[in-house]
Amino acid sequence: MSAQSYFADWIAVDWGNSCQRAWAIGEDGQIRAEVQRASTSRDILPGAWEAALRGLIGDWLGIGQTPVLACGMIGGRGAIFEVPYRSVPANPADLRPVPVTGLSDQRLALSIMPGLCQCSPADVMRGEETQLLGFFSQQPDFDGVVCLPGTHTKWVQISAAEVVSFQTAMTGEMFALLAAQSCLSSWVTTDEIDLAAFDDSVADLLADPRRLSQRLFAIRADALLNGVAAPVGRGRLSGALIGAELAATRSYWLGQAVAVIGGHALSALYLRALAGQGMTAQYFAGDTLTLAGLAQIRAKLVGKAI
Amino acid sequence: MSAQSYFADWIAVDWGNSCQRAWAIGEDGQIRAEVQRASTSRDILPGAWEAALRGLIGDWLGIGQTPVLACGMIGGRGAIFEVPYRSVPANPADLRPVPVTGLSDQRLALSIMPGLCQCSPADVMRGEETQLLGFFSQQPDFDGVVCLPGTHTKWVQISAAEVVSFQTAMTGEMFALLAAQSCLSSWVTTDEIDLAAFDDSVADLLADPRRLSQRLFAIRADALLNGVAAPVGRGRLSGALIGAELAATRSYWLGQAVAVIGGHALSALYLRALAGQGMTAQYFAGDTLTLAGLAQIRAKLVGKAI
Repeated sequence: MSAQSYFADWIAVDWGNSCQRAWAIGEDGQIRAEVQRASTSRDILPGAWEAALRGLIGDWLGIGQTPVLACGMIGGRGAIFEVPYRSVPANPADLRPVPVTGLSDQRLALSIMPGLCQCSPADVMRGEETQLLGFFSQQPDFDGVVCLPGTHTKWVQISAAEVVSFQTAMTGEMFALLAAQSCLSSWVTTDEIDLAAFDDSVADLLADPRRLSQRLFAIRADALLNGVAAPVGRGRLSGALIGAELAATRSYWLGQAVAVIGGHALSALYLRALAGQGMTAQYFAGDTLTLAGLAQIRAKLVGKAI
Repeated sequence: MSAQSYFADWIAVDWGNSCQRAWAIGEDGQIRAEVQRASTSRDILPGAWEAALRGLIGDWLGIGQTPVLACGMIGGRGAIFEVPYRSVPANPADLRPVPVTGLSDQRLALSIMPGLCQCSPADVMRGEETQLLGFFSQQPDFDGVVCLPGTHTKWVQISAAEVVSFQTAMTGEMFALLAAQSCLSSWVTTDEIDLAAFDDSVADLLADPRRLSQRLFAIRADALLNGVAAPVGRGRLSGALIGAELAATRSYWLGQAVAVIGGHALSALYLRALAGQGMTAQYFAGDTLTLAGLAQIRAKLVGKAI
């Protein structure tokens, strides 16, 4: 029994803004365990990141060192170790993880993927570059635009397997703040979305993006005056924000081949909104693509075929 | 000594979304005391509103009844007593306060001003109608547009002392949420605003309001990539949101006589943004106008000249 043949041959970590996932991978390349946790990166105090990582994957560590390959906010400013961005244009397959030294837990042989940056307009991504790498392993010839809905939705222009440019919209974060903590909260408290209200708001915002500020408060006013049901309010809020985002990213998606990569419920809204504009986008479930990207990097590191 | 000749002849209350003010007025019409408190109306639990009111003005109550005349969120849904809105067009001078019965503290002879509503586009105001009444007492012949910056900024079209139409922008609330609780927070933590950054963002958003979503995340990206100072970040955030609001309300202010009524610091930003568009707006300090409006209503109730 070798020093590494305990539970995991290596561990993959996807550290998102609002959700963290990890997979323990056996020597046979199979997933032996996985874990998912919802927490906000900005709630982690400086200096507490290594403990947060151990909280996620500590159960899988043996007595020797375990290789851990991670992407996302864990490599950001103020987290475990700031990995410099790589500028676009860039091919995600050319990215190399950076080994992290100086951790207090010697069992962690941690490497972190660099994110991508764009100088003008200024933009950054961490984690999506690895998800795109996984996507390319399934769609090597994809040329067009990838939309990755989430806390910070990314629109990425892809040509010849390179990320040419990208644009971030804070739509998910704005929705979460407005739905939970604004004067609109009482009127959108439901998990249901009225799709007619969603469609109407998307169309209205695409027709005139200036209407965002008025449409938001009108959710409250209309509910107070006319007793609008919560799913309608939530549909309007979601539709107004996604409509404003589509208006802002029109130069990305208009007339392009579009792939939407993400969770099912949120991606469905983006697909629906795009369909309303006559755009048929292809959907790819996002959850396994990051792992696929990390596995590809890992295979390259140890010289294995995938 | 009459039953009402203790401390206050009557009490004026201005219950804003994020700030509450009250004044104890003597028989001579002079202010004997005033108090100001910052709290968010949505943090007050249902059933706790009367206690919140007593917390604000309880020190001024005697053994008999004291007339209390209030406006704002205290008359809203879920607060002490929901006073129905009056539809626009409406002259604020025609509004009558509604007496509230069934309070547990018998010393409170509370009346609350109705707010204004607009059916289409759906919109509501509570408190600003009373502030406008105070404004009209100073500017009886004003014809044009009044902008009342705040948590929920109101743009109000005035003609012949009537509120003809109005539009609400959630700019103040969005700014507070994004500055304190979003991924932008670390980059805007300062009280200073870089005015060049503010101007640039206002102009950019007015030129193309669709850019809002991209400009917001770019505050973070540019700070990460280029080490932008916090006052610049804050200027960009404020400028982007106010610029988006000005784009949304252009039909209100363009070519009109504009009066800005509100606190000094925030109003100064609106005046500056409007000046950048060649609009010279007149400024009126907001803090005493609500009291002036309530005093006018009180005088009418007791049959006194002001």
